[in-house]
Amino acid sequence: MNHRPTLKDVAAAAKVSVSTASRALAGNPAISPATSRIVEKAAKKLGYRPNSQARSLRLRQPTTIGIVVPSLLNHYFAAMATTIQAHVAEAGFTAVIATSNESPEEQNRALDSLIDQQVAGIICVPHEDCASRLTELVDAAVPLVFIDRSVTGQLAQVPSVTSDPSAGIAEAVQLLSRFDDGTIGYLAGPQTTSTGRERLAIFESATQAQSITDYLTFLGGYDQQRGFKGANELLDRGATKLLAGDSMMTIGVLEACHKKGLVIGEDVAVVGFDTQPLFELQPCPITVIDQGVHEMAGASARTLLQLIAGHPPDNPQLRLPTTLLARPSTSPKRGGSQ
Amino acid sequence: MNHRPTLKDVAAAAKVSVSTASRALAGNPAISPATSRIVEKAAKKLGYRPNSQARSLRLRQPTTIGIVVPSLLNHYFAAMATTIQAHVAEAGFTAVIATSNESPEEQNRALDSLIDQQVAGIICVPHEDCASRLTELVDAAVPLVFIDRSVTGQLAQVPSVTSDPSAGIAEAVQLLSRFDDGTIGYLAGPQTTSTGRERLAIFESATQAQSITDYLTFLGGYDQQRGFKGANELLDRGATKLLAGDSMMTIGVLEACHKKGLVIGEDVAVVGFDTQPLFELQPCPITVIDQGVHEMAGASARTLLQLIAGHPPDNPQLRLPTTLLARPSTSPKRGGSQ
Repeated sequence: MNHRPTLKDVAAAAKVSVSTASRALAGNPAISPATSRIVEKAAKKLGYRPNSQARSLRLRQPTTIGIVVPSLLNHYFAAMATTIQAHVAEAGFTAVIATSNESPEEQNRALDSLIDQQVAGIICVPHEDCASRLTELVDAAVPLVFIDRSVTGQLAQVPSVTSDPSAGIAEAVQLLSRFDDGTIGYLAGPQTTSTGRERLAIFESATQAQSITDYLTFLGGYDQQRGFKGANELLDRGATKLLAGDSMMTIGVLEACHKKGLVIGEDVAVVGFDTQPLFELQPCPITVIDQGVHEMAGASARTLLQLIAGHPPDNPQLRLPTTLLARPSTSPKRGGSQ
Repeated sequence: MNHRPTLKDVAAAAKVSVSTASRALAGNPAISPATSRIVEKAAKKLGYRPNSQARSLRLRQPTTIGIVVPSLLNHYFAAMATTIQAHVAEAGFTAVIATSNESPEEQNRALDSLIDQQVAGIICVPHEDCASRLTELVDAAVPLVFIDRSVTGQLAQVPSVTSDPSAGIAEAVQLLSRFDDGTIGYLAGPQTTSTGRERLAIFESATQAQSITDYLTFLGGYDQQRGFKGANELLDRGATKLLAGDSMMTIGVLEACHKKGLVIGEDVAVVGFDTQPLFELQPCPITVIDQGVHEMAGASARTLLQLIAGHPPDNPQLRLPTTLLARPSTSPKRGGSQ
């Protein structure tokens, strides 16, 4: 035999299937002791060394980090995970991604799975109801960085990278007030998340600061369905200017406007959240509040790599400012007619 | 002490940092033997049991599977990974995702990382230049399923789930031939991929079957930039009907049409690939060839779970048909004028 013996060779020599040979060598009790002995003899005779052993000899330290985001169907989180991967790859780490679907159970499962795989550290969009599991990670000294959201209480000490929506929302309200004399409708995110609560409070103070009293709000969730429902409700209640509190609700707003046959930038003004092709590649591109997801992702990767190296992070609680990307969807109306 | 002792308690008792305690217990040589002894004594006195030990006792078999896709910024692959996750979750498995960015080196790194983490099996969009690493996995009896693409040669035996573009492309060519009397331009995918080569061949036989001789082609790549470049080139060469060979190039086609101020469905007909909000949520929704990514993802998950359970898969080489979702972007033109 000229090549390094493989499990296939062992199976052939022992006259069993590859899967039986694999399980026999792994000590799986489903395989009879007699068969196991035959397989072990064949492996010894051939000088077979399982790949995983060879690999664990090669491996000095964990080189994989884990990323936990709510959903990859949200372009914002897909971009976040992709940028983190690129950053840690430069430092020699591979990243694996797990999703939580905004469910505490799924987030706990994702965290357990990453820990079982002994990742070197975790970057996580935390769910508030996972505080106890996250606290366990902190107690076990697992390098951990929060991104996009922070958690209050004991976990407030965990290094985090979030965005400060103040500047972006204030600018958006100002821009919308110049579109026409109509009413602004705000689609708020879930009030169980730090981002949902904070953005609503900031929207309300921005309207106050600009002496706008006749705005409308819809308490939604971070998904397209509730964005669609909220946009329809707000438009039916008389809003002519919509501000969506996250990217998924922005998608629902587009759906509602297109289905109602409303021309964005003419019949209705729209401001969304986050940069993604869907918002830019419209005949009338959509103004967005940009959270700088690439900067956030890069900063979270740098912080995690510092923690893994045993250094205190440069910026344990980093808040990056949002900016408004003004596009034609909020250009002031030429006439006053519908 | 009323709670189970944590690493923090050990560190406090040993008067060292949590990170030092963690590394001392892990036998890290960076920690002096004297410090290690102090930490070990403290751990023993407190009855500390590391979380990872507790977990490995609890764990019977690997419950994590790995998914390798080219990019999560491509909604098609994000949807694929998300649906696979949902399917394996029903069977009690957690999925982690790694990306290859269409690079053989990154795909090899991703596969190594998943194997080092001893995942129970892998679903992979294979890169042809990774054949040797993929063959190693097959030899090591790692349950492996290919999705979206297959690989020729020895790896043709690996269970795979792909889509058959014939029906969708033939229907698209037929629909486009009715839009106006102009020229069809086809944006082909990379000819280094099985999908890129096959779709171009099918497009050419579909035009032949319909006696269309004056079509144009652009040899591109699976990214927005080349879709944009190709659309501009084909439009400049006189095409009035564009067919994009994958979803990323479809995005580039939208970008080119919007930037040239062409009204889709009036000035130019467009057919893209795959369902995603960007194509549906346009004032003139885009006709697409639907590969049924959710069905493909579900089938790949079922096949992998069968392999993990030691059963031969029901459908080792599954090809699912594509369908055309006709939307207004290809509705026949009313008049003949631009």
